[in-house]
Amino acid sequence: MTHLADEEHGGHAQGWHASVLTLFPEMFPGPLGFSLAGEALKRGDWSLDAHDIRDHGLGRHRSVDDTPAGGGPGMVLRADVLASAIDAVCAADARPRFLMSPRGRPLEQARVRALAEGPGAVIVCGRFEGVDERVIAGRGLEEVSIGDYVLSGGELAAMVMIDACVRLLPGVMGHDSSGAEESFEAGLLEYPHYTRPRAWEGREIPEILLSGNHGAVARWRREEAERLTRARRPDLWEKKST
Amino acid sequence: MTHLADEEHGGHAQGWHASVLTLFPEMFPGPLGFSLAGEALKRGDWSLDAHDIRDHGLGRHRSVDDTPAGGGPGMVLRADVLASAIDAVCAADARPRFLMSPRGRPLEQARVRALAEGPGAVIVCGRFEGVDERVIAGRGLEEVSIGDYVLSGGELAAMVMIDACVRLLPGVMGHDSSGAEESFEAGLLEYPHYTRPRAWEGREIPEILLSGNHGAVARWRREEAERLTRARRPDLWEKKST
Repeated sequence: MTHLADEEHGGHAQGWHASVLTLFPEMFPGPLGFSLAGEALKRGDWSLDAHDIRDHGLGRHRSVDDTPAGGGPGMVLRADVLASAIDAVCAADARPRFLMSPRGRPLEQARVRALAEGPGAVIVCGRFEGVDERVIAGRGLEEVSIGDYVLSGGELAAMVMIDACVRLLPGVMGHDSSGAEESFEAGLLEYPHYTRPRAWEGREIPEILLSGNHGAVARWRREEAERLTRARRPDLWEKKST
Repeated sequence: MTHLADEEHGGHAQGWHASVLTLFPEMFPGPLGFSLAGEALKRGDWSLDAHDIRDHGLGRHRSVDDTPAGGGPGMVLRADVLASAIDAVCAADARPRFLMSPRGRPLEQARVRALAEGPGAVIVCGRFEGVDERVIAGRGLEEVSIGDYVLSGGELAAMVMIDACVRLLPGVMGHDSSGAEESFEAGLLEYPHYTRPRAWEGREIPEILLSGNHGAVARWRREEAERLTRARRPDLWEKKST
């Protein structure tokens, strides 16, 4: 049974497991090897492996891309090469498979939370102009976007998604309660923070935060969070109200 | 005159210049040292320096944070410490100053393009619960968010913003025209890409892309981009239509 569980989760029975397919495996773990995520990685709370798509490249030069059908600039990652790389990593694997792409569904905190509760993720990083469309359907990749801008590749996007998930894993954050009041968890942006000193360059900490009245502090924070959300993100506020 | 230009741009007369303030300077350049951005960095097309906020910490332990006024979990970066770090990097500096934060204005490709045309950016990376609100106004920081999720710190967000800018600098991308037809540049998601082989696992490249009829190819791509945008991102489509 343990062995079966192993197989299902790509050979890792325990912990959240991320597999990344990239042309730049040396980028990983990179920033994910430091701070909260890095300490958790060292403890084995989660695991990460990066696979070089070029290992599945064709011919003497291990070619992975070709010119776009129909013409145009840039190069396109071949469907056959990418499929072979994906099959080698997770042919029998229950983890969801993603392609980081600006065309994808925007990543949101609710999706991050669901992902963090799952077994992990297989993440394909595009480069060049894009990847051959056929491999997306052919290997069941879900396109996901971290925002409405274009990066030079999917690697930073993969790191962003992994970091967002890993910090929610049990034991990774110093205070278990840290997540509950932060941005997006209640459909609101987070309220403003203050700490010592009480006065700085003529700017004071709001009186109410020093009152010791926990109910009043909580009300003030809620009101500030709502005020900020209405002012800065009417789109979020509208979603929340409906 | 050259010297004045030097002063204005933080000591770098030439090229796009990013300065990052972080508690983890060793994360940089990290992924930005590879591929397109890394090659451009080596060529001197842009420059990057990472500054340790802890160098401006207080006392024997170089303390940078304290508990939140009003109570609650986590720690808050002190305004005085962060201000001192910012002043040391860019007291007389024309570059815009950012705080990466989920409460900020969502980063979009139009903003990226404007930033890439400027002298660079000073980017403050938050950690812990957040930063003392007073330093944001006190040092003119613009809060910017890379998406509606929460990261363990601002470092990956800073890298994302820098990468998005750097790839638009003259000479960084292999093909100057690569940017013109990609996602968001016309308010649309990008059309699907295909390359060899013509048939893969029973899936064919759409006939029209092999027709050699450039006008028909361009029309098909435009229609596909519009279809994808309507289906996946009605919010973008609506913005475009108004």
